[in-house]
Formats: sequence, structure tokens, C-alpha cells
Amino acid sequence: MTNPALVEELKSLVEPGKVLTDADSLQAYGKDWTRHFAPAPSAIVFPKTIEQVQAIVRWANAHRVALVPSGGRTGLSAAAVAANGEVVVSFDYMNQILEVNLTDRTAVCQPGVITEQLQNKAEEHGLYYPVDFASAGSSQIGGNIGTNAGGIKVIRYGMTRNWVAGMKVVTGKGDLLELNKDLIKNATGYDLRQLFIGAEGTLGFVVEATMRLDRAPKNLTAMVLGTPDFDSIMPVLHAFQGKLDLTAFEFFSDKALARIMGRGDVPAPFETDCPFYALLEFEATTEDVANHALETFEHCVEQGWVLDGVMSQSETQLQNLWKLREYISETISHWTPYKNDISVTVSKVPEFLKEIDAIVGKHYPDFEVVWYGHIGDGNLHLNILKPDNLGKDEFFAKCATVNKWVFEIVEKYNGSISAEHGVGMTKRDYLTYSRSPVEIEYMKAIKAAFDPNGIMNPGKIFAV
Amino acid sequence: MTNPALVEELKSLVEPGKVLTDADSLQAYGKDWTRHFAPAPSAIVFPKTIEQVQAIVRWANAHRVALVPSGGRTGLSAAAVAANGEVVVSFDYMNQILEVNLTDRTAVCQPGVITEQLQNKAEEHGLYYPVDFASAGSSQIGGNIGTNAGGIKVIRYGMTRNWVAGMKVVTGKGDLLELNKDLIKNATGYDLRQLFIGAEGTLGFVVEATMRLDRAPKNLTAMVLGTPDFDSIMPVLHAFQGKLDLTAFEFFSDKALARIMGRGDVPAPFETDCPFYALLEFEATTEDVANHALETFEHCVEQGWVLDGVMSQSETQLQNLWKLREYISETISHWTPYKNDISVTVSKVPEFLKEIDAIVGKHYPDFEVVWYGHIGDGNLHLNILKPDNLGKDEFFAKCATVNKWVFEIVEKYNGSISAEHGVGMTKRDYLTYSRSPVEIEYMKAIKAAFDPNGIMNPGKIFAV
Repeated sequence: MTNPALVEELKSLVEPGKVLTDADSLQAYGKDWTRHFAPAPSAIVFPKTIEQVQAIVRWANAHRVALVPSGGRTGLSAAAVAANGEVVVSFDYMNQILEVNLTDRTAVCQPGVITEQLQNKAEEHGLYYPVDFASAGSSQIGGNIGTNAGGIKVIRYGMTRNWVAGMKVVTGKGDLLELNKDLIKNATGYDLRQLFIGAEGTLGFVVEATMRLDRAPKNLTAMVLGTPDFDSIMPVLHAFQGKLDLTAFEFFSDKALARIMGRGDVPAPFETDCPFYALLEFEATTEDVANHALETFEHCVEQGWVLDGVMSQSETQLQNLWKLREYISETISHWTPYKNDISVTVSKVPEFLKEIDAIVGKHYPDFEVVWYGHIGDGNLHLNILKPDNLGKDEFFAKCATVNKWVFEIVEKYNGSISAEHGVGMTKRDYLTYSRSPVEIEYMKAIKAAFDPNGIMNPGKIFAV
Repeated sequence: MTNPALVEELKSLVEPGKVLTDADSLQAYGKDWTRHFAPAPSAIVFPKTIEQVQAIVRWANAHRVALVPSGGRTGLSAAAVAANGEVVVSFDYMNQILEVNLTDRTAVCQPGVITEQLQNKAEEHGLYYPVDFASAGSSQIGGNIGTNAGGIKVIRYGMTRNWVAGMKVVTGKGDLLELNKDLIKNATGYDLRQLFIGAEGTLGFVVEATMRLDRAPKNLTAMVLGTPDFDSIMPVLHAFQGKLDLTAFEFFSDKALARIMGRGDVPAPFETDCPFYALLEFEATTEDVANHALETFEHCVEQGWVLDGVMSQSETQLQNLWKLREYISETISHWTPYKNDISVTVSKVPEFLKEIDAIVGKHYPDFEVVWYGHIGDGNLHLNILKPDNLGKDEFFAKCATVNKWVFEIVEKYNGSISAEHGVGMTKRDYLTYSRSPVEIEYMKAIKAAFDPNGIMNPGKIFAV
């Protein structure tokens, strides 16, 4: 799409100055947090109303121009990357929370609302938006819906899917659909809202979303527990789930902790060195609850599942314990990690992890494997750090081989090749490890119904 | 489908004796709890395996025979009625719980598992299946999924949708799809599982479902509160939601209570007569929680929102308070009620209810309107009892007029014409009051992708 007449036509659809074609903007808005693809969009357009979004989609259909939705661009699967002359549709100027309803506990959001903005707005009203993750300060609600964002509180609150009361979408045909009208109960045929959640913008644009809010959590309290081996983490999870309503159950390995300790700005949880650590969180609503937690801790120690542990006694200690987990991704990014975001059912996690560890260790004994993740959801982040003496290209070439092994093991365990990061372009060619060819055909048929000209984020999820 | 050769061919696909064509069976298996349509199926087939279901669907495609899925036949929208010579596919012989996994807290169910069977199995393992409603003793899991069943605990636990970890379906084309593989996190494209939930068997058959289980609730405690008017119920809901995690918040009118009292087998909650009553439930995990409830009750009395109230002190009292709500439907069935199951967002409920009350009262002052429902979800059951001096036909003719008014008000308030009962045949012609014509076109396109020959439960949700 380099035709200047087309760009002029596009400009006529939005407010003055709301189409950018300068090199810096193309570079900035053409990419997400992945760095595998060089951004090369034709233009960036910033609609301010739903009508403008519809006009853009109709224009794109008329001229067969590919559109790429753009939110906070914090994605990790290149779903929001424009590498092939597409027009990027950015929601940066549709960023208002239009209404908060305290009886319904809902907030009507434009798609460009930042996750943290919604979290703060909820807090102002004594409520809580529970979907939370490292990029909450930049990611946008529209993007969260497009990828069905998960994060650190899924064990209690579920994914973004659970928090979308209703939404307005503009389909790939330019139709405006008002989906579910924010109802809790609505048994009137197929719930199209669910299709758009996690569709990565391949069916249409989310142009407004009513998000549910929850009551604020009370006296959140965290424990970090060191275990003698990975297998012990599962009975610990089981024991605590039997006694407490957990809001989080995360884990990380000694190698992950070592990197955090290397920063020098996070206190160690305790002195005992352990190969694995669990971080769990709950609402200590009464002293009883805290006592249950301590009793369960003692039980786990007696059983030999836990070597040492600590429980937060203050908000500061809570924050410090969470830093042990939340800083990992950023900290290890200095070692050019090969990353994978995989999941299996919780009960299969120990075997699954061991099998991957064994195969990587056998073929690449010099690779440092850093494990962490949302163990309560069966979601593991596998990170392999580049050895200092290995070139970047050679490292990534070896990792491509690892990729295949990992995905074969994922398939064997009936798991997911992308637990919460989406498919985009990075996982597209591996989709059959998690979805059958027949399933993919049905997905394509649905895509064709909503986007017959294939203008909506082509090349994402499926190859064009 | 009266061709005997076809029936013989059908018999060859399943075990001996598993195709019935006698009049009694056709009558019994051709209907659900609605009585608007005369059952007229051609045959009833009972598959015992997934392969047999696939064979039946392929046979139906080859001969263009319409199939109707049949579970517990407790539906209230005629979605499982075979009134046009269809073949009924009953899942009565696929009724096993195949596996319970305590770590994943899941149970793998065949579609014919009775809801109560799953509830009991969960209880055996110290767990809980929280979707519960009056027909739990007969309804089947496959049917619950097909209608996305709700019930009395939605405010805390959500609809059936929230509890389906994964499922196997046979599409209208005969393909077996294994959807979501029971994963908590799986961001690999469109979540087709969601499409089949609430699809009323129009896309394919649910042939296996992995249902999530929860921890058992602790010390459930109910309160029944009498309010001076309907409007007071909303601030009561708000007050209690701010202090407690409610597991239910139901309401009923004095007219509903009067009918229950007329039975003579349920104790009155308290002496004060009130026009409306709220029933709420919570887990009294500690004394603190019960104290919060009592403080909130006192606050509501001070504010004039509550005239009288009672809190259960034992399991028996809990059960007795619940009878006030749960017996309504069965009790009023003696007065040939015209029933509607409608919803709006919670904040709109008071105005919505008043408007319907006014229009019915104005035109039919002799009609007794009995309101009850799941007020915490915005779901109201509107029941109009037939006056003794009015003939059945005349009553239902007048109700058809009421129907139109009610649905016009539903549309005005952006509500749902079917909150939890589904569309089936009874609501099919009213679908546009809740879904736009464009939305319905997309729904039909999806139907065509999964069931190109239109053999799956034709005439349900959409007209044929």
C-alpha cells in the first residue's frame, strides 16, 4: 500500500494529523515486544470514534488493504507487528474509561485504555481489576482481549475472558456488533463475544469493552517456600489449595533466584538454598486464615516437601517477595533468553518439565535453563540463557532445534504451545502441535465469515 | 424419515436394541419440559461410544436426516423437542464419569452424566460441582453445556461455561474435535469450545466433557430479609456484596411466598409481612464473617431497607430457607403459569421490573404476577398465573400479547429474552429482540461452517 492517493483517502476518514507515515512512527508502531520481524507498515492511523474505525475497515475492504490492530504493543508473539506494508490501526486516541457502574461493578472502556489505568480507576472506587502482569503499565484493554491476557492472578480470577461483560466490535466486513450487552446471563444463541476474545484481531477490532470489576482483595499475604526438588511443589500446591483460597501460586528455580540476587536490590527470602521455590498468596482476612497457612506450612515441612519458608508481615514484605518472581523476566533479558510459554494440565507438570529438562540437558549441557511460571495454572515459562561464549546466531539456530523438541513434548502431553502469549507470527507455523488440522480448518471457516477479504491482521494465527 | 430401510441402516450403526421406534418411546424421548409442541420423532437412537455418534452423524448427512440431541429433557425452550420426524440421539447410555483428577480438580464426563451424579461424585472426593438448579436430579451434563445452564449459584460460580475445562464434540460434518484439552491457559487461536457451549446442539454433539470442580463450600449460611418495596432490594445487595462474598442472592415476591405458605410444609421465615424478600447465602467461615453479616443486616434495618430478617443457625434451617425459593417453580405450576426468563444488567432491574408490572397491571388487572429469580445476576423469572375463571386458550392468547410487551421492554433495556433457558423453538421467533439481524447472520454463517447440511437440531435458535 504505497499508493499516495490511498493514503490521502485514508486521511479523509479521520481527524487531521491522525495518519502518520514518517519513518519513526512506522518503526515505532509497526512492532511489538518481539524483535524477530522488521517493522514495515505503510501508515499508522489513529481513529477517535467507532464510526471512524468502521470507515477505515470499509476503505480497507474496498482497496484490499491489510490492517493490523495496535494496542500497547507489549505482545510476545508478533501478533501486532506490521511487517508487510499493512496499515496499523492504533487505539491510542480511544483511551477513555467512559463509565463506571458501582452496582453492576463494571467499567466501560475504549480499547486503548491502559490496563493500569483500569486498575487505578477500580481502586478509586474501592474495587479491583484483577488481571495483572508485568506489562500492565503499557498494555491496552483491546490488546488484552485480543490475546485473552492471563498473568499472575489466574488461579483465582481467571483470564481476561472472565472479565469481559460485553463488547462492541467492528468485524472484518465493517459491521458493528454489540456483543452480550454486559449481561451476566444471556442464553440467546452463540456467544460471539467469546470468539473475539483471543482472536488476535483476525476477525475484527474490539472498539469498546465493558469490563467487570471485583471487590478489593483484603490483606494480601504471600509466602515463599523452598522445596528440595520440583516434585515437592505439587503436594505443596495441593496442601495449600485444600486449606486456603489462593490468589496466586507461582514458582521459580534456583537459577532464576540467583539472577535476581545478582541485581543486589531485592532481599533474599531466607538463607537456605533450595533448587525450587514456590510463591503463594492469599487473603489473610482473619487470624484464622493466617494460622491455617502456618499449619499447612508446618505440615509441608514435616512431610519433607518444604525446606524453608517465609510469610509476609507487611505490605513492603509482600512487595519484596513478589519482586523475586516479577523481576525475573526483565532481569534475564540481559542474557538474550530463548523463551517459551507452554502449558499442560497441572497434574502433568512434573513429568513434562523433567522431560524437557532432560532433552535440553542432554544435547546442550552448557545451556542454562531458567524455569519459572504460573504453576497453579500449569503454565511454565521456559527460558534458556545464551552462554557468553556462543554467538547470537548460533545460539538461536540451536534453539530452533530445541523448539521442535519442546513442541513435540507439548504435543505428547496434550499441552499448549502458547499458554498466554498468543500465536501471532512466532507460533503460527507450530499451531498443529496444539490444534488439529481439522480444528484449524473450522477456525479458517470462521475467519472467512467475519473477514471474507482477509484484510484483518493477515498472517497472524494462520499463514496467508 | 419413515423409510424402514433407513431405520435398518441406523440399527446397524449401534448395539442391538439401541434404536427404538415404539410409540411410547417416541412420545417420551421426543419432548422436553415444555408442552407447546407435539413430539413426533421417527426413531430414538442410543449410541454408546463416540465412534457410534460419528457414524450416526455421517449416516444423517448421507441421507439428510435431521438429528435432535437428547439429554435429561428438562429444557424449558423446546430445544430438545423432536416435532418433525427427526431422529433423537439420546445420551442415556453414555452416562459414566470416566475419571476424577484431584490435582487438576476435574472430572471427565460422558454427556449423559446426570448433574447430581457429578455433584455427588465431587462430594465423595471432598470437592464441589457448583452449578445447581431445580432439575439437577434429571438434567445431563451434555444438555447443561448445550444450554450453558445457570441456576442458583451463578453470582459466585458463574454459568456452566466457567466449568468446562475441555470437551470432545462431533460436529455436524461428523468430525471429532478435541477442544482445549482441559488446559487452564491456552492462547492458540479461536476457543471453539466456547461456541459449542450454549449452541443447543445446532453445531454438533458434545460427546465428552471435562468439568472443573471446586473446593467444598464451608458452613453455608443463609439469610432471608423482608423489604418494604422492590427498590430496597438493590441497596441491600450492594451493602452485603461490599462486606461478604455471597454465594447466592435471590428474591421473591409476597405472592410467591403466599403460594409456598399455602403448601403447609415449609415454615415461614418470620412473622412480618413484606412485599418482597431477598435470600442471600455466604460461607460463614469464621465468627467474624457471621458478625459482618449481622452488622450489615442491622445497617440495612436502620436505613429502612429491611423490615425483618432471619439467619440460618443449622443445616436444617438453611434447607428450610432455601425451600422458600426453590419450591416456587414447582408450587405455582398448578396455576398454569405463563413463564418468562429474562435478564438485564443488575442496576437496571428495579426500573425494568416496574415497567413490566405496570403494563401487565394496566391491561390485565386480574392477572396475578409472581416474581422471583436470581436478582444478583439480573435474572428475573416472570410468572403470570391463570385466573381460575379464565379458560386456558384465552389465557394463553392474552399472554401472547403480554409476551410482545415484555420483549419490547427487554429490548428497550438492552436485556435478554432468555437469560438461562435458551432459545430452542419457543424463543426463536423473538430472537431479534436480543440479537441484531447482522449478529444473527454471523451466527448462521458459523452454523453453516459446522453443519453445512443443516442436519443438527434444525429449527432450533433459527427457523429452518
